[in-house]
Amino acid sequence: MSAVSLLTKAIELDVSGRRIEALKLYEEGIGELLRVCKAETNEEKKKHFQSKIVEYMNRAEEVKKLVQKWNTKGEICDKIHVIDGASGFSYRRVFEKYMKDDVKEILIDEPYLKEHFQICNLVMFCELALSKCKNLRYIKVTTIKDVRPSSEQNNGFSSLTESLAKKSVTINFDFHENLHDRQVILSNGYIIKIGRGLHYFKPPANKYSIGAFDHNFRECRETNIDIFYCPENKK
Amino acid sequence: MSAVSLLTKAIELDVSGRRIEALKLYEEGIGELLRVCKAETNEEKKKHFQSKIVEYMNRAEEVKKLVQKWNTKGEICDKIHVIDGASGFSYRRVFEKYMKDDVKEILIDEPYLKEHFQICNLVMFCELALSKCKNLRYIKVTTIKDVRPSSEQNNGFSSLTESLAKKSVTINFDFHENLHDRQVILSNGYIIKIGRGLHYFKPPANKYSIGAFDHNFRECRETNIDIFYCPENKK
Repeated sequence: MSAVSLLTKAIELDVSGRRIEALKLYEEGIGELLRVCKAETNEEKKKHFQSKIVEYMNRAEEVKKLVQKWNTKGEICDKIHVIDGASGFSYRRVFEKYMKDDVKEILIDEPYLKEHFQICNLVMFCELALSKCKNLRYIKVTTIKDVRPSSEQNNGFSSLTESLAKKSVTINFDFHENLHDRQVILSNGYIIKIGRGLHYFKPPANKYSIGAFDHNFRECRETNIDIFYCPENKK
Repeated sequence: MSAVSLLTKAIELDVSGRRIEALKLYEEGIGELLRVCKAETNEEKKKHFQSKIVEYMNRAEEVKKLVQKWNTKGEICDKIHVIDGASGFSYRRVFEKYMKDDVKEILIDEPYLKEHFQICNLVMFCELALSKCKNLRYIKVTTIKDVRPSSEQNNGFSSLTESLAKKSVTINFDFHENLHDRQVILSNGYIIKIGRGLHYFKPPANKYSIGAFDHNFRECRETNIDIFYCPENKK
């Protein structure tokens, strides 16, 4: 994509409140513009590009600050203590009431997405988000990279990306070595922090047991779920 | 179990409207009573047993007729034509509105329960029934036996039986060579007939695709779903 189309799209997303996706496009567009600017020999045109770069960098910086603020805790609005062996805590039960039409973007920080069951949990989470948030367009997942050759992560992430794209949702994976915090941030202002992240279910007794598919029947490991509401995140 | 406890339990279930389960216990109890009667040497006691056997056989016959009547079609109350490639037809979507607290027993006629995905479909169906019908106590599945050695069916059916028992639901498997009709009969009077039985979903693109878990996202094969209501079945 050209610098112009990247930046036009970035502004469009920015205005419609899809900040994280906009930020990514601002960065790509600025990079592209820098390249064009460097190659330009006409001094006047070069100057014009430079001023545009500064303008977009300022806006990107503002958006970045807005998104970073999403990490502030806000007001606590619910607390669930899941005791070891309890059931009835499917993602639907935990997330459903916050996943509304005003969610356009979701940020997921989950360090462990390497094993088959962990990637399955992510897929299930995305399925729920997709069915509950009619205006969802962007998901950003931050996790630790699986460096093993022919990792399940590679296969899983690319299948998920492809199938979400068919539903007009872009998913992006960001890799951080030292990630440890786990949280899900919805762009309508809700932040859900689960001590064990997405992986608080015990495995089913057998692949054909009740609970193999419907996680409301699954026994859970002990964990705390804290839900915060931060209306500033909506702006 | 002794004849007395089998038959006492049968009457208890019969009175509470759990007919299919009652029928099974009547049959077992009568068998047991026949054995006792045969071994009895005291003529008077023998006579008493014989009259009891006739009494229970008559009741069992009546219950059998009641249950057989469940197969009458009743009044058609909904019709869904699923076109090839359509999505949005999870079991939840199709069955949920009929699965209420007045369902105590479910009959499933599904010839094909041999392959992994077919047994998974049965498990998912049972999960839904369990979560929607608070008073469900008995499920009877009629299917074709998989005679291959170390069949998936054996493993699947015993895991499912075991895990349903933990939820106070008894499941029973009946094998019929020439079964071809497919239907689900709920003891509140609803009969759901799906041309392709439980297996009208296309496989997901990949094990990590959207739709791998939530069947509302799965593409379907063309099929017809007819729902009948037969209030007599409730009696």
